[in-house]
Amino acid sequence: MQRKVRVSVIGPSEATPQTLALAEQVGSEIARRGAILVCGGLGGVMEAAARGAKQAGGLTIGILPGTDAWDANPFIDAPIVTGLGEARNVIVVRSADVVIAIGGAFGTLSELAFALKLGVPAVGLGTWQLRAPDGSEPPIILADSPTDAVEKAFLAMRRRHK
Amino acid sequence: MQRKVRVSVIGPSEATPQTLALAEQVGSEIARRGAILVCGGLGGVMEAAARGAKQAGGLTIGILPGTDAWDANPFIDAPIVTGLGEARNVIVVRSADVVIAIGGAFGTLSELAFALKLGVPAVGLGTWQLRAPDGSEPPIILADSPTDAVEKAFLAMRRRHK
Amino acid sequence: MQRKVRVSVIGPSEATPQTLALAEQVGSEIARRGAILVCGGLGGVMEAAARGAKQAGGLTIGILPGTDAWDANPFIDAPIVTGLGEARNVIVVRSADVVIAIGGAFGTLSELAFALKLGVPAVGLGTWQLRAPDGSEPPIILADSPTDAVEKAFLAMRRRHK
Amino acid sequence: MQRKVRVSVIGPSEATPQTLALAEQVGSEIARRGAILVCGGLGGVMEAAARGAKQAGGLTIGILPGTDAWDANPFIDAPIVTGLGEARNVIVVRSADVVIAIGGAFGTLSELAFALKLGVPAVGLGTWQLRAPDGSEPPIILADSPTDAVEKAFLAMRRRHK
Repeated sequence: MQRKVRVSVIGPSEATPQTLALAEQVGSEIARRGAILVCGGLGGVMEAAARGAKQAGGLTIGILPGTDAWDANPFIDAPIVTGLGEARNVIVVRSADVVIAIGGAFGTLSELAFALKLGVPAVGLGTWQLRAPDGSEPPIILADSPTDAVEKAFLAMRRRHK
Repeated sequence: MQRKVRVSVIGPSEATPQTLALAEQVGSEIARRGAILVCGGLGGVMEAAARGAKQAGGLTIGILPGTDAWDANPFIDAPIVTGLGEARNVIVVRSADVVIAIGGAFGTLSELAFALKLGVPAVGLGTWQLRAPDGSEPPIILADSPTDAVEKAFLAMRRRHK
Repeated sequence: MQRKVRVSVIGPSEATPQTLALAEQVGSEIARRGAILVCGGLGGVMEAAARGAKQAGGLTIGILPGTDAWDANPFIDAPIVTGLGEARNVIVVRSADVVIAIGGAFGTLSELAFALKLGVPAVGLGTWQLRAPDGSEPPIILADSPTDAVEKAFLAMRRRHK
Repeated sequence: MQRKVRVSVIGPSEATPQTLALAEQVGSEIARRGAILVCGGLGGVMEAAARGAKQAGGLTIGILPGTDAWDANPFIDAPIVTGLGEARNVIVVRSADVVIAIGGAFGTLSELAFALKLGVPAVGLGTWQLRAPDGSEPPIILADSPTDAVEKAFLAMRRRHK
């Protein structure tokens, strides 16, 4: 039995129209490749990615911080209601084979940090730049377009599972 | 936009063949009525319910306690990897419109308690009998067959959302 | 280096004066024996137990469900702010060498269930009566007074750590 | 009734002797000012800070990711056993009036992100450098010595609570 791969799109609940357009394309590409879209379930980048995935016929899962399934944006097929607040961010990361960060507020930063910590490959599309105390930069895979981001995500995922 | 209802089946990871047969029928009935099956994602009652749901063409979500998506039983479409241990039980309850408890070990008892606490209707099929310090019995809806359990679950859910 | 033992007192945030008096005595006995009192940090049984412990010169820790340290009752020395909602119940149990349940609402029931699941000894003083599907009763140690409860808790804890 | 302030020290479980010496001094300064030291409870920076605090007569709380109180380093007075894995990082941040980051691995980065997200003031001593997609740098307060870090932490905390 083969299970579909899962890709988490992480990004802020408020974003510019350009960032939202990127997120929608990323969501669409993910669904077109047959993967499940996972996200935090709320607005902004999360909603745009879910909308893109639904328009391409995909399945969408929203891992919500609050206690109400109705917090989920209208493009979420299956709301997961955690009631854990920000602690749900680690579930968004753990539940994915690969994460794609688009834009970035502080919540996105925490999710990038968890991906790095847990060894989940992370692709960044216009996201945080990070420099460790020893001067090194963590292995976030940089992308310059939605298609590039999804391609690099699938490549990283295949390398991870080999 | 209409979202599918979600029913959580809760029960132990080890159970008798009779209990597993009940769980499989419950899962099957849930899927036949077009609902998403949510469960803890592991073996025993969780696996039997998921198998029943998949055989009836349903969608299954497993909210795992551990850190590895491969812990999910083979009938889970979308594993949610929490890494939270037993604390994930509250998510299994919160993510459902109604829960059905089948059999019952201590984990199931914690989930029944959360359902009662959070106001999620709970149907019991051969599960815990509870008596509060004041002598009262909490409002678990008793069922005597898989079909009865699913019927009562849908009825309770509709009353809840009215 | 020797670490102080930790005893969790679990019970509802609203209780009768008699139940609150029992909780205060239990808290007091715990502190008198040099143990740290752990609880859920809010009112009712939690507050009464913490008050008892502080009056006897003890140290009190409150593991809060919300996001604000000021939710803690005034007898908590160290509020732990989880923001996890009901999922914090499992931390109240895990952080103790033994738990004492006094009275009992649904939250208390979930904590008893976690104690049973995780093998943390549980003493009950006027709490839930439970019967498993197979007719068995889980090993909750019954006590008939605050002193009896604390004595039995320390005994169970010593047996556990041997 | 006045509650002691709580300062979380966040940093990696493996660090250079220089970094550990900084952490020990920070812990010592925190205790000398009468605050409770909160940390993740494990080794490295967490242990050094707890050792410093205990040597100065302070109280130490360790919020552990695992399921065993014995994972706590020997300088922890009160281990909080979460069993939540990395999700416990948000509790380390939420439970503090202010956080001080020393050095920094990926877990520390997630804690800095949560502090920024939740509005808990964060002081950095040789920690991550962060640049948001819009080019801005988040408001981490830079310190150049243990005393400077603790002074700035108390200052930021007082401003926060005004």
